[in-house]
Amino acid sequence: MVQYKLNYFNLRGRAELIRLIFAAAGQQYEDVRFEREQWPEYKPKSPLGQAPYLEVIENGKTFQLAQSLTIARYLARKFDLAGKGPEEQSEAEMYADQVLDLLNEMVKIHFEKDETRKAELSKKYFGETIQNTLKVFESKITKNGSGYFVASGLTWADIFLADFLGWLGDKKDALITPFPAVKALVDKVLNHPKISEWIAKRPKTEM
Amino acid sequence: MVQYKLNYFNLRGRAELIRLIFAAAGQQYEDVRFEREQWPEYKPKSPLGQAPYLEVIENGKTFQLAQSLTIARYLARKFDLAGKGPEEQSEAEMYADQVLDLLNEMVKIHFEKDETRKAELSKKYFGETIQNTLKVFESKITKNGSGYFVASGLTWADIFLADFLGWLGDKKDALITPFPAVKALVDKVLNHPKISEWIAKRPKTEM
Repeated sequence: MVQYKLNYFNLRGRAELIRLIFAAAGQQYEDVRFEREQWPEYKPKSPLGQAPYLEVIENGKTFQLAQSLTIARYLARKFDLAGKGPEEQSEAEMYADQVLDLLNEMVKIHFEKDETRKAELSKKYFGETIQNTLKVFESKITKNGSGYFVASGLTWADIFLADFLGWLGDKKDALITPFPAVKALVDKVLNHPKISEWIAKRPKTEM
Repeated sequence: MVQYKLNYFNLRGRAELIRLIFAAAGQQYEDVRFEREQWPEYKPKSPLGQAPYLEVIENGKTFQLAQSLTIARYLARKFDLAGKGPEEQSEAEMYADQVLDLLNEMVKIHFEKDETRKAELSKKYFGETIQNTLKVFESKITKNGSGYFVASGLTWADIFLADFLGWLGDKKDALITPFPAVKALVDKVLNHPKISEWIAKRPKTEM
């Protein structure tokens, strides 16, 4: 039997994609959550001194992994949420990397201290960058006919897009409404029985 | 027969890792390079409207991929430069994602226009961030005994580290000298017969 332990702050943050993959797969795992002041105790145990990190315990051996998308790819392949075959798996990775670029830009804007620059960056991000990316996604999702990023159906890239868009709060609806295929994809992910069950019961945290 | 076409600006930039993987694998490919003013002609052909993008032509069908690390992972798996088995492959991906974080931070500093902020960011980056990461890498490389990131030997993550450190210019030697295992890894990559052959003959470009 394989045991999984996911270690992260008591936040959705960079770990929520991983938790959503576990949820979609119906896979039990230990959802270890620590407070900021406990981080010095966990940091030395993490393979790169970062969170999230995953421990996979099998036959008495522990395998450790860090970097949220690396963990997500690893689990998605294990749980058949990565796409069928090398081409589709790479396509899903490509879309996920694109979502990560959007997420990283959002985090950068969030932490920008200069108010003038923050306003400029936000204007471009919410008025142009997100739309340009969603426009490309819309066309790809429509073209492949499955209603998901790749032709064979749901992958972790779809889950990541739905998770990311959740960060946009009250801006989300206006941003995705012009893109019906994107909106339908996100609705399907959020209404996935196991995913919606997790979202309903997950700890309520600040971010 | 499979044909590969890599499309990018006439720069090393975000495509050089991919070219180095082709080189290490001894795989023929078409190294399509365009000038900035030609980009409007290529942009609509790219799957995400971005460069680099890869075209894989097999049995009359074309498969397209964007996002440099997605392309790198795809090719590394094809050419046996990804590590042995899911665990090692994920470890290599983890290290590569960490190198990408360093690269993205470097790019951010490079494009920072506020000189005061640029100086602050550079100070932290070259005086702390890189060292902290190399320290972790040093310990991992030493521990696994192969002299590379993963136990079975050379992977694309090692190639990416060597490529990234090449961007540090005259700061590189001082930064890696305190980390002999990192230095030895980088030397091995740069002295790999096929990689060194490519580096010697590759087009000389501004970046």
